[in-house]
Amino acid sequence: MPRAIPRLEYLFNPSTIAVIGASREPVKWGSIVLSNIIKGGYEGKVYPINPKAEKIQGLKSYPNIGKVPLEIDLSIIAIPAISARIPEVFEDCSEKNVKMAIILSSGFGETGEEGRRAEEELVSAARKASIRFVGPNSMGIFSALSNLHALMPTIRPQKGSISFVSQSGNLGVQMLSRGEQLGVGFSMFVSSGNEADLHCEDYIDYFRRDQNTKVILLYMEGLRDGKRFIEITRKTTKQKPIIALKAGETRAGAKAALSHTGALAGSSRIYNSVFKQFGVIKAENTEEMLDFALAFNQPLPKGRKVAILTRGGGWGVVTADACNKSGIEVPKPPEELLEELDKLLPSYWSRNNPIDTVAVRDPTVSIDILNIISKWKDIDGLIILGGFGEFYSDFLKRIGFDDFYIEMHREILERDVKKLIEIANNSGKPIFAVAFKLLDRSKMIRLLNENNIPVYYSPERAIKAFAKLIEREEYLKARAKGF
Amino acid sequence: MPRAIPRLEYLFNPSTIAVIGASREPVKWGSIVLSNIIKGGYEGKVYPINPKAEKIQGLKSYPNIGKVPLEIDLSIIAIPAISARIPEVFEDCSEKNVKMAIILSSGFGETGEEGRRAEEELVSAARKASIRFVGPNSMGIFSALSNLHALMPTIRPQKGSISFVSQSGNLGVQMLSRGEQLGVGFSMFVSSGNEADLHCEDYIDYFRRDQNTKVILLYMEGLRDGKRFIEITRKTTKQKPIIALKAGETRAGAKAALSHTGALAGSSRIYNSVFKQFGVIKAENTEEMLDFALAFNQPLPKGRKVAILTRGGGWGVVTADACNKSGIEVPKPPEELLEELDKLLPSYWSRNNPIDTVAVRDPTVSIDILNIISKWKDIDGLIILGGFGEFYSDFLKRIGFDDFYIEMHREILERDVKKLIEIANNSGKPIFAVAFKLLDRSKMIRLLNENNIPVYYSPERAIKAFAKLIEREEYLKARAKGF
Repeated sequence: MPRAIPRLEYLFNPSTIAVIGASREPVKWGSIVLSNIIKGGYEGKVYPINPKAEKIQGLKSYPNIGKVPLEIDLSIIAIPAISARIPEVFEDCSEKNVKMAIILSSGFGETGEEGRRAEEELVSAARKASIRFVGPNSMGIFSALSNLHALMPTIRPQKGSISFVSQSGNLGVQMLSRGEQLGVGFSMFVSSGNEADLHCEDYIDYFRRDQNTKVILLYMEGLRDGKRFIEITRKTTKQKPIIALKAGETRAGAKAALSHTGALAGSSRIYNSVFKQFGVIKAENTEEMLDFALAFNQPLPKGRKVAILTRGGGWGVVTADACNKSGIEVPKPPEELLEELDKLLPSYWSRNNPIDTVAVRDPTVSIDILNIISKWKDIDGLIILGGFGEFYSDFLKRIGFDDFYIEMHREILERDVKKLIEIANNSGKPIFAVAFKLLDRSKMIRLLNENNIPVYYSPERAIKAFAKLIEREEYLKARAKGF
Repeated sequence: MPRAIPRLEYLFNPSTIAVIGASREPVKWGSIVLSNIIKGGYEGKVYPINPKAEKIQGLKSYPNIGKVPLEIDLSIIAIPAISARIPEVFEDCSEKNVKMAIILSSGFGETGEEGRRAEEELVSAARKASIRFVGPNSMGIFSALSNLHALMPTIRPQKGSISFVSQSGNLGVQMLSRGEQLGVGFSMFVSSGNEADLHCEDYIDYFRRDQNTKVILLYMEGLRDGKRFIEITRKTTKQKPIIALKAGETRAGAKAALSHTGALAGSSRIYNSVFKQFGVIKAENTEEMLDFALAFNQPLPKGRKVAILTRGGGWGVVTADACNKSGIEVPKPPEELLEELDKLLPSYWSRNNPIDTVAVRDPTVSIDILNIISKWKDIDGLIILGGFGEFYSDFLKRIGFDDFYIEMHREILERDVKKLIEIANNSGKPIFAVAFKLLDRSKMIRLLNENNIPVYYSPERAIKAFAKLIEREEYLKARAKGF
């Protein structure tokens, strides 16, 4: 019998939450998660459940969920698996009309035969109680819309348009943390744990329907229902890009995955062919996950031609190489464009693409060059190498320019960056920026982040990500033709 | 007629320097380079040369080099190329017994036919004056030994054991700057510019003979004397690793390189086969340059087997995948080792490699686990994923632990890190660390940096770099067999 579509709005946007296993000891997970929910600014009602406490973290505590005065949408279960009380807890939950649960407790399927049996009992108890659940062995969820940080770690992810399901809690959480460092924001995150009940495809299906999600990110080690994954994926990639890292691809990796979440990794050949056929964008490593997700903040290119704007010859060369390797063209600018640029650049400039501004230092030049390039109809995207970050301001400061001059330089730079954002918004073409000071968090870079211009710290990584926009555009075109 | 080996000690370790084109205007290159030399702490004598000034930056200035009271080892020439005075300057230099020059001026071979002729004149004038020179179109040099920052940009590279020749000034300098951010140190750097006289192979040959250089790094776009490059490379790779990024590999890249330094890029097939035959380690992108250089701070592995120590299942899986893809083995630990680990880890631990400590939080456990792993004779290296950086301290702070506890945790962590360093030093095997907070510059990470344990921010990149140690070991073995 097919089961109803899980109502994941009760998971990601609940009105009432019970934290079962909430504790006054700060080092217990139940206590940490409760504190994260409260400090994270969740606006619904949250009830700590603990048989021994009257008050936890300033909130009235209840000995069991039955005593809570309201119905509960979501139960977060943080009691040890070995207590074997979870099925019983589900019974209590059912009386309060709980729709969703997150089981943080570990020690189930990932630990061997006995754990697998306990996990099966969990599933039966949940079905009896009409509760759908995340986990077990989950590190929790995040939802930007409801300010919900139901997470074991204390991170506060940046809000944005990526929704992410990760079969590894640790890896997922560190990606959120990296996002925070890089200015990459998330709409929803779920550490799906062992996926005893809800599977990664259930979350994907919900992300597909969520208006705030522009890109879906997936870290996976294995699948419990390949057929359903394919069905949902196919439906989803018509609307939104899915970027997936499939780990456990190799023998050594698969062995590690088995002892990690109990997942059967499956052959990488099968996954590659499924991904390709159903338009899933494959990340080859953990860095590519965020690199690629970031790219989809930009519109898709209509073709394969880009202009590269650089301030240093060498960077132009490696970027052109990277384009060639990814099948991206770097065409020569038309003569009339070259003539316009001639007026601004020294006589010996390269007159080609990459457009090398030969480190011309007059700051008013960049904006004029950008204006000229924006008239180039025959390109499908623009890659800008350097010039936005703190590199040059640092230089000015160190050679002894006074604060007044540096401030003036910053104002001109800010004007240029705003102009770039305007050009990007009007052009309908993807524009990527590359900064050379690693993790530059200066005002200009933040301005680019906030306006959805992706910033990379390596041109080669920027180009690989750009190629994924092309891949998606071509997939959508093929699919529109009725494939 | 073969020319004498250039005496590059006068370039990288001069007793006296003249800066020709020194200026009182802070924005002129001559002024910036002079200021960098002075502020950088160069201990020899430096003489500004300027026909119009009496004093520049607190130093007595001379109208021409002839008026300087001492002999000059190195002249740095920062007058515009268009003044066409450089050949004349060489004549003056020759009277002062100048051995080396750096020509920062641009506008030569990289600008077209006329520039190429001017460059040829430069070469004749230098030969007549018995001066060897860097450039033109160079951004300068750095030498840790003599605290010499004869550079156009204001960076202060970290001191270390990498010596680096870059045919792109911009790219080279930004690598130095990244090194500073990542804790990667340099012994010497030269922006070789157009290589009208001294070629990249001349610097490589000098780096080969330099005791402080452990790794040679090369960014190249093309060669002027392929045969000599091969000769010197072959001699060098017997003693030290050379890591090279060959840019301009593709059609688009080669075109860009031509207009950048006038270099003929040559076919990538030829370079690949030369690199392979003569043991040059190829970096595929700019990130790999520093990733690989960093690795060679560690001893070479005797074989292909590694142990992976992780605190999170997912990271273990992607690392095992990366190993498999690079031909690195992840063998199962022997039973007696597993039994020892059983005593420390929860009953459901994976009993396999990656050794997943299942996020055991007792901080005294790590050191015991490390001690056990260090007894594992049959592995050739160790990869440690996480646990050293600020990630966990941040977590403790956020869940409300007081400063006293966090300080205690830091002390235990520091003891563990020191133990790791001791194990690394005694084992003779390569040990790599992976940190998950990007650009973590906390005390523990610095301690690892200072003790030559490479720190990466992505396990996949760490593994690629580890594979290069294996490549080098195998090259040396093959070569010892008389290949």
